[in-house]
Amino acid sequence: MGDVAAVPVIIDCDPGHDDALALLLAVGDPRLRLLGVTTVAGNQTLAKTTSNALKILALAGAIDVPVAAGCDRPLVGELTVAGDIHGESGLDGPDLDVPVGEAAGVHGVELMRRLILGYGEPVTLIATGPLTNVALLLRRHPEVLPYVRRVVFMGGSTDRGNTTPYGEFNIVTDPEAADIVLRSGLPVTMIGLNVTHQALATTQIIEEFRGMGTRLGVICADLMTFFASTYRRVFGFEHPPVHDPIAVACVIDPSIIVTVAVPVAVELVGAYTKGATVVDLHGRSGAVANADVAVGIEVEAFWRLLMAAVRRVGLGPLNPPSTPIPPVRRAP
Amino acid sequence: MGDVAAVPVIIDCDPGHDDALALLLAVGDPRLRLLGVTTVAGNQTLAKTTSNALKILALAGAIDVPVAAGCDRPLVGELTVAGDIHGESGLDGPDLDVPVGEAAGVHGVELMRRLILGYGEPVTLIATGPLTNVALLLRRHPEVLPYVRRVVFMGGSTDRGNTTPYGEFNIVTDPEAADIVLRSGLPVTMIGLNVTHQALATTQIIEEFRGMGTRLGVICADLMTFFASTYRRVFGFEHPPVHDPIAVACVIDPSIIVTVAVPVAVELVGAYTKGATVVDLHGRSGAVANADVAVGIEVEAFWRLLMAAVRRVGLGPLNPPSTPIPPVRRAP
Amino acid sequence: MGDVAAVPVIIDCDPGHDDALALLLAVGDPRLRLLGVTTVAGNQTLAKTTSNALKILALAGAIDVPVAAGCDRPLVGELTVAGDIHGESGLDGPDLDVPVGEAAGVHGVELMRRLILGYGEPVTLIATGPLTNVALLLRRHPEVLPYVRRVVFMGGSTDRGNTTPYGEFNIVTDPEAADIVLRSGLPVTMIGLNVTHQALATTQIIEEFRGMGTRLGVICADLMTFFASTYRRVFGFEHPPVHDPIAVACVIDPSIIVTVAVPVAVELVGAYTKGATVVDLHGRSGAVANADVAVGIEVEAFWRLLMAAVRRVGLGPLNPPSTPIPPVRRAP
Amino acid sequence: MGDVAAVPVIIDCDPGHDDALALLLAVGDPRLRLLGVTTVAGNQTLAKTTSNALKILALAGAIDVPVAAGCDRPLVGELTVAGDIHGESGLDGPDLDVPVGEAAGVHGVELMRRLILGYGEPVTLIATGPLTNVALLLRRHPEVLPYVRRVVFMGGSTDRGNTTPYGEFNIVTDPEAADIVLRSGLPVTMIGLNVTHQALATTQIIEEFRGMGTRLGVICADLMTFFASTYRRVFGFEHPPVHDPIAVACVIDPSIIVTVAVPVAVELVGAYTKGATVVDLHGRSGAVANADVAVGIEVEAFWRLLMAAVRRVGLGPLNPPSTPIPPVRRAP
Repeated sequence: MGDVAAVPVIIDCDPGHDDALALLLAVGDPRLRLLGVTTVAGNQTLAKTTSNALKILALAGAIDVPVAAGCDRPLVGELTVAGDIHGESGLDGPDLDVPVGEAAGVHGVELMRRLILGYGEPVTLIATGPLTNVALLLRRHPEVLPYVRRVVFMGGSTDRGNTTPYGEFNIVTDPEAADIVLRSGLPVTMIGLNVTHQALATTQIIEEFRGMGTRLGVICADLMTFFASTYRRVFGFEHPPVHDPIAVACVIDPSIIVTVAVPVAVELVGAYTKGATVVDLHGRSGAVANADVAVGIEVEAFWRLLMAAVRRVGLGPLNPPSTPIPPVRRAP
Repeated sequence: MGDVAAVPVIIDCDPGHDDALALLLAVGDPRLRLLGVTTVAGNQTLAKTTSNALKILALAGAIDVPVAAGCDRPLVGELTVAGDIHGESGLDGPDLDVPVGEAAGVHGVELMRRLILGYGEPVTLIATGPLTNVALLLRRHPEVLPYVRRVVFMGGSTDRGNTTPYGEFNIVTDPEAADIVLRSGLPVTMIGLNVTHQALATTQIIEEFRGMGTRLGVICADLMTFFASTYRRVFGFEHPPVHDPIAVACVIDPSIIVTVAVPVAVELVGAYTKGATVVDLHGRSGAVANADVAVGIEVEAFWRLLMAAVRRVGLGPLNPPSTPIPPVRRAP
Repeated sequence: MGDVAAVPVIIDCDPGHDDALALLLAVGDPRLRLLGVTTVAGNQTLAKTTSNALKILALAGAIDVPVAAGCDRPLVGELTVAGDIHGESGLDGPDLDVPVGEAAGVHGVELMRRLILGYGEPVTLIATGPLTNVALLLRRHPEVLPYVRRVVFMGGSTDRGNTTPYGEFNIVTDPEAADIVLRSGLPVTMIGLNVTHQALATTQIIEEFRGMGTRLGVICADLMTFFASTYRRVFGFEHPPVHDPIAVACVIDPSIIVTVAVPVAVELVGAYTKGATVVDLHGRSGAVANADVAVGIEVEAFWRLLMAAVRRVGLGPLNPPSTPIPPVRRAP
Repeated sequence: MGDVAAVPVIIDCDPGHDDALALLLAVGDPRLRLLGVTTVAGNQTLAKTTSNALKILALAGAIDVPVAAGCDRPLVGELTVAGDIHGESGLDGPDLDVPVGEAAGVHGVELMRRLILGYGEPVTLIATGPLTNVALLLRRHPEVLPYVRRVVFMGGSTDRGNTTPYGEFNIVTDPEAADIVLRSGLPVTMIGLNVTHQALATTQIIEEFRGMGTRLGVICADLMTFFASTYRRVFGFEHPPVHDPIAVACVIDPSIIVTVAVPVAVELVGAYTKGATVVDLHGRSGAVANADVAVGIEVEAFWRLLMAAVRRVGLGPLNPPSTPIPPVRRAP
C-alpha cells in the first residue's frame, strides 16, 4: 500500500474528544495523506480547539502536519461552546501533557486555500466541527472549487439532534455555513447522528483501547471514558458515540458507510428548529439531491479501522511528512 | 364489565383509513362510551370525511352516535388534503356501500361543546385529524375546559415526520391549532409516528382481520391493504402503520403505551419545518413539560385490542345507545 | 335624513380612548345604525374593555345597544395589553362614573353572528381592536360571509408601526387573526397609522370639545388630554392621534378617506417584524389586491364629523333603539 | 484645504447610477482621499459593476485609484440583480465609452484589508452596495477592526423600502451581511431611503448638471435622466432620488445629515420582510443603540456639494494620486 495512492485530505475540526479520534485516525491510516489541519470555534473557543489539535498531533508524532487557526465565531450568529459535553478544556479527561509546536502564522481559511491550490490533485475536505471555515473558503476563494474533490462532514441528522430536538451541535452552531456548503454544488457527504449513534464505545471497546500498551491507547480510552460520563449525564446514553472519526473512516473505506443521494436543506428560520438538517429521504419535496447522506454503518469494521490506526500511531511516527505550506501565491 | 365504568369520549377525526379503524375500536370496546364524532378537513375535504365517518358508524351499527361536521379548513393556513395516501374518497379500497344517516345539524365544535357540558363527568377528547376543531372549541368556548378530562391526539413525532422530513400530516395541516392545544394547560397525550410506526399491519395481521368471518373484518383488511399499497409506493414501507386506533387504544388501556412527560412545542415558523412537533426528550430547553408523549407501545396487545373490538362490532350492535344531543343551552 | 338609509354596523372594539371616540361617533351620526358592540382583549383585559364599552354607551345614552364580551386572548399567541398607553383602566383620564347595564349573556362572536344573520341586509363590521373576534367569526361561522358587506378595521400601517418599528398594536396583538380577515375574500378596508397619524388632536381641537357645554364634550377632551400625555411621553408626539373614529368616519362618509386597492399581507414569521402589515403599494410582489388601504384623509372634515356626533349625543338620546338580539337560531 | 486633512476612505460599491455619482463625489471633493474602490454583485453582476466602476473612475481621471472585484454573490442567499432599475449594463443611459484600466489582481476583500492595514490612520468604509464584502472582511480579517474608523452605508430605511414594502435593495440582497456589519461593534452610520428620498433630482437640478459644460456634467445628467425614467415607471416618482452620494457627502460634511443613535436590527427571518432594517426610533425594544441612523438631510447643501465635485472633476484630474496597493503582508 504505497503513499502514491493515499487520498489527500484536510481536516477542519474543533477538538473536542471525537475530533481527537478523527485526527488520530487520519494520521494513523496510510490510505490518507493528511495535508493540514484547520481549527474552528465550536466545542470550545478557537484558542482551545487549536491548542487541542496541536496536542493530539504532537502525541501522534505528526508534528510536521501544519495546523492553522480559522474562525473564532460562526459566520452570522453568535458562538455557544459545548463545555457541558467536552469540559472546560474541550478535551477534558486524559493527561495530554506534551510539548507542542505552534499553529501556522496564517488563517485556517488561507491554509486550506494554499494546500488545495498547491496540491497536484483535488483534495478532500473532512469537517468535524461547525462549517464556518469551509463556508468562508467557498465564499472568499471560489477559485478553489475545482480543486476540492468533495466535502465530508460530521454533522446534522436524518432524525433527532443533540443540541435541540432536531438540531445537531455542528450545524446549530453555524447553520448558515452549513447551508452554504450544502448548496455549493460540491459533492458533499453528510455523516449525521443517525449513523454516529450506532457506533457506541462500549466498555469492551474502551478497554480494548486501554489494553493496547501505548500511551495513545490509554489517552483514547480516557477520552471515551470522559465522553461516556457526559453522554450518560446529559443524554442518558449507556455508551457514548464517537461521531467524528466516522467521517474520516468513510473516506478511507467507503464500504463502511451506506449513503443515499437525497435533498438536504438547513432550516435557517425556525424558532425551535434553526440548524436542523432537513433530509428528504422519500423525495416528497421534489427538490434535487445535493448530498450523499449516511444512513447505515458497518460498526465492527469501523472500530477495527480506528483501533488499527491508533495502534499504528502509538508505535511511532508512520505518516510520511506532509507537504510544507506552499509559498504565498497571489490570490485572485 | 358494566357500562357505568366506561370512559366517555368524543372522537374528532378526518376518515381516513386509520381514522376508520379508530372509530371501530371506539365503538367496539365496552370500556369506552362514544358520545359523539366530529369531523374535520384533513385527509380529505370535510364533506368526504363526514360522509366517511357516517359510513363507518353505519357499518358498525352505531347509528345512534351523533356525527357533526366541523371546520372545513385549518385555523390559519390553507388546506392540503392527502389524496395520495387515502385516495380520492379518503377511504379508497373497501366496498363501503351502506345506507347512512345524516350529520347533525350543528357544527362539530358546537356538538363537542354540548356533549362536554351536557355529560355528568369530564370527557376525553380523542383527535385523530388536524386539531382545528379542538383548538376552535378551546378559543371559542373556554368554559368547557374544566369538563375536558384530557386530549389524546394522534399526530406529530419525536423523530421524523411523514409529510415533511420533520412534520407529520395532522400537525403540518394545522400547526397553529396544535400549538393552541399543546399550550392549553389541559392534560395532553401525543401519539406520534415514532410509536405508530412500530405497530405495522403485517400480511398475517391483515389476514387475521380478513378471516374473522364478518363483513367488517373484510373491510378492515381491505382498508389496510389499500393503505399498504400507498405506504409502499410513497414511503417504501413493507407493511403499513395504522396510526389512529393507537390513540383510542391508550384511552382504553393506558398500559399499552409508554409515555414521558416532556416539553413539546410546535414549530410555527420554519421554512422547511413548519408543523414539526419539537419534543424535548432530554430536557435541554429548560421548558416545562406540557404533554405526555408516547415513546413505546405494546404492539401485540394493541392488535389484540383492535381485533377484539372489530370482532365484537362485526357480530352486531353492542354499544349501548349514546346520549342524544343535549338540548341547546344558552352559550355563555 | 331618515333612518331607513342608515348603514347597519357592528363595532368590535377594545376601549381604549380612541375606541371610545369611535363608539361616540357611531352612536351620534344618524347615517349609521349601530346594531351592537362586541369587545375583545387588547388595549386592556376583556373585563375592562367590556366595562369601558358599557360605560361609554351609557354616557351616550345608547343603553339599548347590545354589548357582548368576545375573546379574552388572541387566537394563537399570548395577550399583552397596552397599559402604558391607555392606563390601568384602559380608559384613564376622564370621570366616567355612570350606572351601566350588563353585557349580553352571549359571547361576542355569537352576538355578531345573530346580528348579521338576523338583519335584513348585509352588515358592515367595524373593528377597532385586535381582529380576534372577527377571525373567529369567519372560521366558526363561515355561513355569515354573504351577509357581511365589508370589514373596516383600524390597524396596521403602510409605513412605521407603534408597537414595534413596523408593527401596529392591533395587528401585533393578533397577527393570525388579521391574516385570516385579510385573506377572507371579504371587502376589507384598512385604516392604518399612516393615515391616523395625520389627524392629530391639537390643543385647539381638544378645547373645542371641552367647550361644547356637555358632559360628553368634557369627557372627550379629557380622553384626548390623557392620550396626549402618553403619546408625548412614549412617542414624543406633540399632539396625539385618535385612530379608531376614522374607521367609523369612512363608513359614514367615504369621501373623507383616500384608499388604494393593493395587496396586503401580514408578517407572521419575522423575528422583529411579526404583525407588520406588508402593503405592496407599488405592485412589486405581483400579488392580487385584497384590501382597500387608506393613504389619505380629509383631516378637517373628519374632525367636523366627530364633533358633530359628540355634540348631538351630548344633547340626549338620538339614535333609534337598535334591534333586540334576535332569538337563537339553530347554528349550521 | 490641504490634503493632509483629507479623510481616507474606501468605497465598496455596485455601480449602478447612484454609485457612479458617489464615486464622482469621492473623487472630486478634496476633503476625501479615495484609497481604493471595491466592487460587489448587486445592482448588476460583479463583472458589470466592476467594469462600471472602472469606467467612472476613468471618466473622472482617477485612473490611479485601485479597483478590485469582490464577491460575486451574497454571503448566504442567492443573487438577484436590479436590471429593472439600472438597465442591462447596470449603468444604462449615458455614453460611457472610455478606455479603462484593469481591476487589481486581488480580491476586493484583500484590497480592503491591505489598504486598511497599510494606511497610517484608521480608514472610513463607505458602502453603497450590498454589504457582502464588508461582512466578509470583518469575518475573515477581524484584525482590521481597530483600523476601521467607521462604516457608512447607504441602505435600509426607517420606514418603507423599495424592493419589498419594508426592504431596501442593498439590505434585501444580503441581509446576513448587513446583520454582521450592524452587530460588529464598529461605529456604523446608516443612510436609508427615508433620507435619500428627500433629495430628489428635479428637472432643474438635472439641467444644472447638463449645463456644466463638461462631459461629466452631461453624463451625470444622463444618469439621472435614465434613473428618473425607471423611478417613474416602477415607483411613480416624479423625480428620482440619487441615494449613494449622500453616504459620501455625510463623510465630507457631517452637518448635511441629522442622525440619531438607535438600535437597528436586520430581519433575517420574515416571510415578507426579510432584509428589513428594523430601526427602533422610540427605544421601545430596550435594545442598545448600535448605529447612527440618518433621519434628516440638508437637501440644498447636498446638491451644492455634489455639483461642486462634479464640476471640479470635469475640469481634469485634481485628486492627488492615491497610495499604491501596499505589498502583500503575511496574513495572520
